[in-house]
Amino acid sequence: MSDRRWMAAAIALGERGRGRTAPNPNVGCILVRDGRVVGRGWTQPGGRPHAEAMALAQAGEAARGATAYVSLEPCAHPSPRGPACAPTLAKTGIARAVIALTDPDPRTNGRGIALLRDSGIEVVSGIGAAEARASMSGFLSRIALNRPQVTLKLATSLDGCIARANGESRWITGAPARAHAHLERARHDAILVGRGTFEADRPQLDVRLEGLRDRSPQRLLLSGTVAPPPGWRVLPDPAAVVGLEQTNHLLIEGGAKTASAFLAADLVDRMLLYRAPILIGDGRHALGDIGLAHLADAHGRWRLTDTRMLGSDRMESYERVRG
Amino acid sequence: MSDRRWMAAAIALGERGRGRTAPNPNVGCILVRDGRVVGRGWTQPGGRPHAEAMALAQAGEAARGATAYVSLEPCAHPSPRGPACAPTLAKTGIARAVIALTDPDPRTNGRGIALLRDSGIEVVSGIGAAEARASMSGFLSRIALNRPQVTLKLATSLDGCIARANGESRWITGAPARAHAHLERARHDAILVGRGTFEADRPQLDVRLEGLRDRSPQRLLLSGTVAPPPGWRVLPDPAAVVGLEQTNHLLIEGGAKTASAFLAADLVDRMLLYRAPILIGDGRHALGDIGLAHLADAHGRWRLTDTRMLGSDRMESYERVRG
Ligand SMILES: NC(=O)c1ccc[n+]([C@@H]2O[C@H](COP(=O)([O-])OP(=O)(O)OC[C@H]3O[C@@H](n4cnc5c(N)ncnc54)[C@H](OP(=O)(O)O)[C@@H]3O)[C@@H](O)[C@H]2O)c1
Ligand SMILES: NC(=O)c1ccc[n+]([C@@H]2O[C@H](COP(=O)([O-])OP(=O)(O)OC[C@H]3O[C@@H](n4cnc5c(N)ncnc54)[C@H](OP(=O)(O)O)[C@@H]3O)[C@@H](O)[C@H]2O)c1
Repeated sequence: MSDRRWMAAAIALGERGRGRTAPNPNVGCILVRDGRVVGRGWTQPGGRPHAEAMALAQAGEAARGATAYVSLEPCAHPSPRGPACAPTLAKTGIARAVIALTDPDPRTNGRGIALLRDSGIEVVSGIGAAEARASMSGFLSRIALNRPQVTLKLATSLDGCIARANGESRWITGAPARAHAHLERARHDAILVGRGTFEADRPQLDVRLEGLRDRSPQRLLLSGTVAPPPGWRVLPDPAAVVGLEQTNHLLIEGGAKTASAFLAADLVDRMLLYRAPILIGDGRHALGDIGLAHLADAHGRWRLTDTRMLGSDRMESYERVRG
Repeated sequence: MSDRRWMAAAIALGERGRGRTAPNPNVGCILVRDGRVVGRGWTQPGGRPHAEAMALAQAGEAARGATAYVSLEPCAHPSPRGPACAPTLAKTGIARAVIALTDPDPRTNGRGIALLRDSGIEVVSGIGAAEARASMSGFLSRIALNRPQVTLKLATSLDGCIARANGESRWITGAPARAHAHLERARHDAILVGRGTFEADRPQLDVRLEGLRDRSPQRLLLSGTVAPPPGWRVLPDPAAVVGLEQTNHLLIEGGAKTASAFLAADLVDRMLLYRAPILIGDGRHALGDIGLAHLADAHGRWRLTDTRMLGSDRMESYERVRG
């Protein structure tokens, strides 16, 4: 297998931690010796142990002379919660390290790679960088923008309605789309709804998929007026996402006012649209005022990154084009 | 080439007439002898000459012994405007006829095929039937339902808006989508807009594509109150489509009230959606009340038949599932 394919496998391992590693990144690591996997690891819930530590523990003596595929540069800074990975890797005698992304955390930021090189380890970096960036987008957003990556989910009819005028919204999309949406919940650290939705629906916001129930995210309520209900945390305003230090990936599930407020503040990085092949007509719409002054300003902001049929519904993922 | 592929070519020829042959079907015909095309024809504007007559005129003596590929059963009934095609084909000495669809017109309806067979010609039917049905959907609708096939076109943002709240709607979709929409105009005999749209926009409804300007359809205005402006015809009500005898394919281009009225009357057979990767927010919506009583009733009515990217916009074609 090529470096690219081993790295893809390491990134896929890192995905297992997604939604549970904040404030740490969801890293994946594979140790390969003579074409055989001798250790695999991914960042554990809460952020420790790191992916490299887990893979090294599995490999034991077999790590000597191996190539380490890591989706993010190994950390150079020890923390009260454990030793730094770069010196640990060096000590175990790996021969080569393939790294997708440099860690932008100012405490590492190239120092991990330098330490490995100084120990005589061959280091290749940049392999699978785009995929690694997508996988750890939440951590990268926290470092670059000091806030989680924000995904807005909308499930609509072909004519852009999220419910009938009387509020009836069960169901617009079919079972495969709803299962996909639950899987997306598991990939997020936190889910937010507005007070209107909270009061109307009392949503559970849990992951109702066999084997993933323990992955239900932190629940957040957007409200400037109410106290947090038990098990919830309150966000007084979209701008308060900056304070969410334990959240890499935030999912917004409605309602229209909440979605519009986040869009108006340009705090949405990704949209996850589910579209059913039905017409509703004079229903409730997905959005209200998002502060658009001219039609021309609406263009060039969103790029389709993924699309797929889920039963008879279409899923589309759009990414905010910045800069 | 196989029968299927020759038939596909005949149907493609028939597409050249689409939008201009009403009340006749847009038929295509290819005459093939020894693997070589000796004649090609398609129904001419106004419905005459027929595709077979045109192909036979081109082939002359070369028609003898040829196979005729015709997308619709040759007519058995002479008309004041010309002779019947089935006996003409028989007389020219073709050896074989491959026919996609039986002509549901009660004056032919199997009699054309019988006449060919009685003349000693080998007849194969049903080849390419689904494609032929899609191509001549307008004519088939007129025979089966006594009205044109009705297509509703909508160009929206991702959140289902057709304009900003102040009416600004130039442009939502990009140039490739707009060119595609003009091409669709050329494939329709008539285009309809509501009085609101007529008065707000004074639309030309012509085909603004090089080489196709002469294919601009008949213009129809939905209004129970106004007299037809010069060059327009008035339809007082959606149900009046039944009176449109010179129209196989009708395209509805808005506005929301008109689209909703046709949908509420279940008079839309096809939807042509263009969707731009933009958000508008509190804009004007594509539809108003379409008479939906329960969400469950909205399901199972529309089937995706085609989808394609046009620049950064997505085109989708949906067909009404009936019966
Ligand atoms: N079919 C679906 O897919 C779907 C999905 C979700 C929701 N829904 C429906 O949508 C309805 C509720 O939606 P909604 O739009 O009325 O309300 P909402 O977005 O759920 O909640 C709005 C509330 O968010 C709080 N908020 C705090 N800061 C805000 C800011 N800067 N901008 C806007 N809001 C802010 C406000 O609460 P305070 O007043 O407490 O400050 C505001 O009243 C419900 O009926 C629900 O069932 C449908
Ligand atoms: N951005 C876009 O893609 C787009 C496309 C099209 C239109 N538009 C905009 O949409 C606006 C007009 O739309 P609209 O919805 O107000 O009006 P509309 O649908 O264009 O016209 C409504 C009119 O249709 C006539 N009508 C006759 N029978 C009817 C029936 N059974 N049901 C409903 N209407 C019937 C009525 O005219 P009478 O009162 O004379 O009977 C009614 O006033 C304009 O501003 C236009 O610019 C935008």
